Amino acid sequence: MSIHKVEVCFSPVLFPDYENKEANVVIVDVLRATSAIITAFQNGVEKLIPVKTIKEARKLKQKGYMVAAERDGIVLDFADFGNSPFNFTKEKIGNRTIAYSTTNGTMAIHMASKCNKVIIGGFLNISALEEWLISEQRDVIILCAAWKNKFNLEDSVFAGALAERLLKQSSFYTICDSVHGAIDLWKIARTDLVGYIEKAAQRSRLKKNGLDDVIPYCFTEDVTSVIPVLEGEYLVELKNSGN
Amino acid sequence: MSIHKVEVCFSPVLFPDYENKEANVVIVDVLRATSAIITAFQNGVEKLIPVKTIKEARKLKQKGYMVAAERDGIVLDFADFGNSPFNFTKEKIGNRTIAYSTTNGTMAIHMASKCNKVIIGGFLNISALEEWLISEQRDVIILCAAWKNKFNLEDSVFAGALAERLLKQSSFYTICDSVHGAIDLWKIARTDLVGYIEKAAQRSRLKKNGLDDVIPYCFTEDVTSVIPVLEGEYLVELKNSGN
Repeated sequence: MSIHKVEVCFSPVLFPDYENKEANVVIVDVLRATSAIITAFQNGVEKLIPVKTIKEARKLKQKGYMVAAERDGIVLDFADFGNSPFNFTKEKIGNRTIAYSTTNGTMAIHMASKCNKVIIGGFLNISALEEWLISEQRDVIILCAAWKNKFNLEDSVFAGALAERLLKQSSFYTICDSVHGAIDLWKIARTDLVGYIEKAAQRSRLKKNGLDDVIPYCFTEDVTSVIPVLEGEYLVELKNSGN
Repeated sequence: MSIHKVEVCFSPVLFPDYENKEANVVIVDVLRATSAIITAFQNGVEKLIPVKTIKEARKLKQKGYMVAAERDGIVLDFADFGNSPFNFTKEKIGNRTIAYSTTNGTMAIHMASKCNKVIIGGFLNISALEEWLISEQRDVIILCAAWKNKFNLEDSVFAGALAERLLKQSSFYTICDSVHGAIDLWKIARTDLVGYIEKAAQRSRLKKNGLDDVIPYCFTEDVTSVIPVLEGEYLVELKNSGN
């Protein structure tokens, strides 16, 4: 049996030093992009277009797409709704193609696009990720979307949680200090995740804008077994994943 | 009283997003560059030239400087000795100018060179750093030299140790997730630093080359109160620091 390595990359800016075309890459932006994207697929969105800039989001709106877009907690005037996972209800988005504006998440997805498969992860689908990554028997990179390139706690503890699960398998190993660091942070945080995240900068930003109601939800494990995957410019549901 | 922020940057590649010309920047490369540099100044080196490439090191040798340079644990044929702190004895380096070849450390120093002062830190001079940074009343960035741009455990736990000391002062605050992460790792590691570092990739690299004898020394607090500081292309002893 061959064994495969697990790595954690704390910021898209660091990714060129981790890039490995053979690897499956899990993109994580717990608060809130990847949690919202997973929720959208759980609720039946057909395709999702991750976009980085307001200009791109506006262009897609003009083409007729529904658009989720905020800046600094304010829903943009041309958008249909904001970036909270709670906006992605079956009624609004079922069987549609949606554009989701996320600076950090889109950058991470773009950086990883030359790797084997780029999948979208969070606590919401962690067991499905674990199962699929084990079935794949490939190297794994967990790529934290970070905040404007900077390390963040919420993505790091998720990376630790997922890496710990994979490394329980004899088919995975690591020599990556970021994996060890992330697992150690996860071990501190796991007994009270929401409490641990109190000190995170993103927690304060969301609270300031009255958007922190999503935090307990975003740290809930296994709300769904769906895994979004990048295909060209679109995110779609990974076949053989859940649902 | 004004208050000043403390930040930790886990890799030189991330530094552009932290850069702050008003800040004092502490460069850390515990295993082994900054530990060796601090030791050199404790033992009376006059100036030290940090160089990144073998080519530069060779050029300085040709100009008559003593050179410390290794690659993959082997002392380069033109060098006077390797990169271990134990090579920097009073007899060899007292009152001389030495070139020290360090890829990660030199890159970090170069990245920070536009900030207020760039100082060299490690466990060996941690209390002197603490005291001087508090006396300065300026923002502080602790810049981890990392390993080929990647996060490492040894620099991160040091960053946590120093940040924790500064944040005990009411004149410092943080909103930086890297600070919280580093302090949490430090809290896990502090009771058995050498044991904690067993899992670090750099620990394995040094061991493989028979160079891990320096580890207990590099994690010893307050061997000296000297602080090396960047002046132009040279590192010199910070006036009013220790000794």
